[in-house]
Amino acid sequence: MDLATAIGLLAAAGMLVWTLWSGSGGALSTFWDTPSAVLVLGGSLFVVLTTQALDKFLTLFGVLKRSFFVKRRTVAQIIEQIIKLGELARREGVLSLENALGDVEDEFLANGIRLVIDGTAAGEIEQILEAELEAMDGRHSQGKGILDTFGKYSPAMGMIGTLIGLVAMLQSMDDPSQIGTGMAVALLTTMYGAILANMLFLPLADKLSYRHEEEMLLRTVMLRGILSLQAGDNPRVTQAKLSVFLPVNLRDSIEGPGGPKKEE
Amino acid sequence: MDLATAIGLLAAAGMLVWTLWSGSGGALSTFWDTPSAVLVLGGSLFVVLTTQALDKFLTLFGVLKRSFFVKRRTVAQIIEQIIKLGELARREGVLSLENALGDVEDEFLANGIRLVIDGTAAGEIEQILEAELEAMDGRHSQGKGILDTFGKYSPAMGMIGTLIGLVAMLQSMDDPSQIGTGMAVALLTTMYGAILANMLFLPLADKLSYRHEEEMLLRTVMLRGILSLQAGDNPRVTQAKLSVFLPVNLRDSIEGPGGPKKEE
Amino acid sequence: MDLATAIGLLAAAGMLVWTLWSGSGGALSTFWDTPSAVLVLGGSLFVVLTTQALDKFLTLFGVLKRSFFVKRRTVAQIIEQIIKLGELARREGVLSLENALGDVEDEFLANGIRLVIDGTAAGEIEQILEAELEAMDGRHSQGKGILDTFGKYSPAMGMIGTLIGLVAMLQSMDDPSQIGTGMAVALLTTMYGAILANMLFLPLADKLSYRHEEEMLLRTVMLRGILSLQAGDNPRVTQAKLSVFLPVNLRDSIEGPGGPKKEE
Amino acid sequence: MDLATAIGLLAAAGMLVWTLWSGSGGALSTFWDTPSAVLVLGGSLFVVLTTQALDKFLTLFGVLKRSFFVKRRTVAQIIEQIIKLGELARREGVLSLENALGDVEDEFLANGIRLVIDGTAAGEIEQILEAELEAMDGRHSQGKGILDTFGKYSPAMGMIGTLIGLVAMLQSMDDPSQIGTGMAVALLTTMYGAILANMLFLPLADKLSYRHEEEMLLRTVMLRGILSLQAGDNPRVTQAKLSVFLPVNLRDSIEGPGGPKKEE
Amino acid sequence: MDLATAIGLLAAAGMLVWTLWSGSGGALSTFWDTPSAVLVLGGSLFVVLTTQALDKFLTLFGVLKRSFFVKRRTVAQIIEQIIKLGELARREGVLSLENALGDVEDEFLANGIRLVIDGTAAGEIEQILEAELEAMDGRHSQGKGILDTFGKYSPAMGMIGTLIGLVAMLQSMDDPSQIGTGMAVALLTTMYGAILANMLFLPLADKLSYRHEEEMLLRTVMLRGILSLQAGDNPRVTQAKLSVFLPVNLRDSIEGPGGPKKEE
Repeated sequence: MDLATAIGLLAAAGMLVWTLWSGSGGALSTFWDTPSAVLVLGGSLFVVLTTQALDKFLTLFGVLKRSFFVKRRTVAQIIEQIIKLGELARREGVLSLENALGDVEDEFLANGIRLVIDGTAAGEIEQILEAELEAMDGRHSQGKGILDTFGKYSPAMGMIGTLIGLVAMLQSMDDPSQIGTGMAVALLTTMYGAILANMLFLPLADKLSYRHEEEMLLRTVMLRGILSLQAGDNPRVTQAKLSVFLPVNLRDSIEGPGGPKKEE
Repeated sequence: MDLATAIGLLAAAGMLVWTLWSGSGGALSTFWDTPSAVLVLGGSLFVVLTTQALDKFLTLFGVLKRSFFVKRRTVAQIIEQIIKLGELARREGVLSLENALGDVEDEFLANGIRLVIDGTAAGEIEQILEAELEAMDGRHSQGKGILDTFGKYSPAMGMIGTLIGLVAMLQSMDDPSQIGTGMAVALLTTMYGAILANMLFLPLADKLSYRHEEEMLLRTVMLRGILSLQAGDNPRVTQAKLSVFLPVNLRDSIEGPGGPKKEE
Repeated sequence: MDLATAIGLLAAAGMLVWTLWSGSGGALSTFWDTPSAVLVLGGSLFVVLTTQALDKFLTLFGVLKRSFFVKRRTVAQIIEQIIKLGELARREGVLSLENALGDVEDEFLANGIRLVIDGTAAGEIEQILEAELEAMDGRHSQGKGILDTFGKYSPAMGMIGTLIGLVAMLQSMDDPSQIGTGMAVALLTTMYGAILANMLFLPLADKLSYRHEEEMLLRTVMLRGILSLQAGDNPRVTQAKLSVFLPVNLRDSIEGPGGPKKEE
Repeated sequence: MDLATAIGLLAAAGMLVWTLWSGSGGALSTFWDTPSAVLVLGGSLFVVLTTQALDKFLTLFGVLKRSFFVKRRTVAQIIEQIIKLGELARREGVLSLENALGDVEDEFLANGIRLVIDGTAAGEIEQILEAELEAMDGRHSQGKGILDTFGKYSPAMGMIGTLIGLVAMLQSMDDPSQIGTGMAVALLTTMYGAILANMLFLPLADKLSYRHEEEMLLRTVMLRGILSLQAGDNPRVTQAKLSVFLPVNLRDSIEGPGGPKKEE
Repeated sequence: MDLATAIGLLAAAGMLVWTLWSGSGGALSTFWDTPSAVLVLGGSLFVVLTTQALDKFLTLFGVLKRSFFVKRRTVAQIIEQIIKLGELARREGVLSLENALGDVEDEFLANGIRLVIDGTAAGEIEQILEAELEAMDGRHSQGKGILDTFGKYSPAMGMIGTLIGLVAMLQSMDDPSQIGTGMAVALLTTMYGAILANMLFLPLADKLSYRHEEEMLLRTVMLRGILSLQAGDNPRVTQAKLSVFLPVNLRDSIEGPGGPKKEE
């Protein structure tokens, strides 16, 4: 899991519990009301379910898991890997890439290299890999969409719960001393909705979105690298073409063809 | 009907009724006020009517029905069907597809195959089918638009109702003990508006939107498949071209040309 | 006027008056405060005027009138008319279309046919008519823009009025029994703003927007039909090309070339 | 200055003052609190300054002035001017346009004509003038951006001021009779923010935006006209090409080549 | 640092402190509550961390620093520099540009000139430099994204804090005289959130966004200038091509080829 995400989620939750603890003088139960929690959590779950087909809804967990646990690699690592493949192809021919496929963990990159080995034309490789990218884009934006939908409907369910609570309280306002407690309970659903949306669903949706952009960048680097392999570019040219994807200050840190660049 | 949507709508409604029941101590009528309900429901209906031509408004129900009840098919099923058609065309010629048309339930796919049988050029097939897609896109976004409009104006009508109720209550504040009841009734319209928008109209609009994306994906697969048929591609090539639309882990599960892929 | 819009506007207004009537126990004047009405209506009028040039502002009424009162025609009617023109052109030559121009009420369609009669090249016809469409698009979006601006500033003026009323009331809170009346009057501007925006300006803007889409669709059908006429297509081909703009279930209802399709 | 904008701004301001006057029983000072005004106006000014480079910030006034005071011309006037230039070029040759340049007030149009006189190729003229349009677009959207930023942060500063006032009041609630006054003062910042945003900054930003669209339309007509001049089109053809930018009902009112069209 | 930004940030902060000072009668501590500050600041920090990968999060500071402290140059300065380079290249050949590289501080411009010296084809130069621009665009929008995320979640954390405070206060409403203080503390989190978002995070995000547009414009001028160098344009032509990026009134102030333009 990304370290920042793990730290962020846990620390935010911890801080919330601590605030509730000190706010209630140690009696966390002050902030707990089962019907309210059921309405907000259950209500948003069912509303989101309404918007989805069952099989799509279930893919959410796969998308989440893959996003958080897949090993992250940097653009620099991808560039170095492609340069090494380029050197191999130059030295021993394109067919020799077959042996190197075992080291290529990324399915997308491996597919591209297989297309190069098969001698597919550049235009066709580009077409096939871009169709893959587009399809991946669709799957990712669907996962993000479900989280966004949760983030949209949980505050709405919170507001509905508070309105119900307020109406119920106002209708039976016999004992003015109960107004405070009634309003406190009514506000709990709004609070639950706000917490769920702003500390869970929306940050995770944002996370998916950033992670998606990162993956698309990696894939674009791979695509350009594969096309450079196919064209039989000199590994130095490949490096020059790909390093534009790095910030200026990181460009020299790449291990170029024939060993670290510093040693040239 | 999609299972998730049916479950979602019913469960959310059930949960709402249960919350109202327990909130009012079993007297659901606490939450019912006929004039308020008429204002919110009738008001949003008439306002939405204002924005529409009558015939367009009436198509909404058709769009809704078709979206929820039409049999869903997966991308994998479409791919398998197209591969089978490709094998048939290869074995017995393109004209033999005529006999297979009976098994093709989807109107769009059938149209495309008819164009292939008639020997229409690839560019023209693409043009015709893309015009169909665009027109379908327009019809769908119109249906979604009506639901979105409902979702936009029903909370607004709720707010207008609450403002009217508050003004009426404040103007005639002779008996302070009536303030609670007055405010409770005034808040009911806001509550109705929030419930209608967030538990009915907007989720259904979201549903239409997801369903639409799904159909567009299916149609895109069909279009690519039809063009592959027209080009006389080897069914294996067709499969390769179309399987980019599947997530990686599902690609092997497709029943390829000449029986299940596993048996090769 | 479109029936739905007329019904919608009148019914929504009637329902509003009825709610106000019953809310005030028959004394509608409870909800009327001349300074508040002047501030909200006058204020939004002047603010919208600020955003506009005078001549543009005055075109709004023309756009509104034309949108609501111009006779609506369906896509099917346009297709049938173009097919008839196509048959005429086939039978008696393109020049004979001159005589049929009297039956063509739509200025855009008539222009296009004149270009065909003049023997203008297909590319040029497309260019000219698309420039017309673009210019129409600009004029329409301007009309909608003014209504949207009204819908944006009238609630803002309502809020400003309520803030003024609250401050005035709070400053002179000598007699607590007057608080209710003071707040009621302060809330009236918010109520006026919400009603103007949500029951008049925004629905009319939405109406213009739907109406615009509808007209653009009709114009697109006309454009394709005119190009088909220019190409000298067989009327059956024209019908096939244009009927993609109809929902599947309406396609057979078109009166095709040589009489109703059923009789073939 | 555009008449509508001048009337709108003055009338809205007048109406506001009148409302404040009558709301406070003639004591306008009820609505004035210097620290509140300083916080809202100064705060938004400094926040907007934070978002800008100093030189860009200062261009705002130039953009505003030019937008409001530059003489407006209509599309029809531009078309007539271009037709006259076209007739001159036809009669006495393109070089004779040099003498007519003195009558061309618009810098953009004059530049274009100079390019035609210099015998620049059509493609190059288009490229140069479109680069000008793009750069103008950037400058205008920057001016509008500053006003939008003001319109975004002034209500925010108003809300911050109100929160500060509420907290201060609630902390020192010794004398309940002072609550009214305290809240009134706290609300003033929200009121100032709402007035500044909705009656000054946002309407002016909208104004710039409409004015910008109008100018872009004029420039587009000029660009097409210049290209028509370059192509040596018959002035009648030029008129036909340019009049699509006019609404249908205004097209006949243009003074065409060789005198008013009616007299032909 | 940009002067306007420095002034804006400091002045806004000063004004805020002054308002708090005078609002609390000199006791700033009235507005300070450590748990509230920890919740809002810590909470938004952790939520933003959730949305990010750690390394990306840390780049924020670099982006901020570079945006505020890098020396700004104007479009006019860039144009003059490119014209001088063009004169040098004309007089002493393209290779002589090598010696002038020392004076070119901007990495992007220097890269482009190196490509010209190497005799790279125009199309390739454009491709490489546009890839650089795109990558820069991505890095900048990421930095802005983090600030926007802060600006989105800090008011949300403020609202959550206020809800917690209200519930805690309402639950333990034994002593009515404490209500004021309780509400004051509850409102503090909303106030902190509003201040952080509207006086720090969002203005800085807007700043980055304007600064980014400015840099993209500079880079575009550089790109066009480099292509003009590569084409061996006469420096006067280069000046004409680039000066469209300047407002009309600044164009004559550029020091053209062969000394100030005035002297010609």
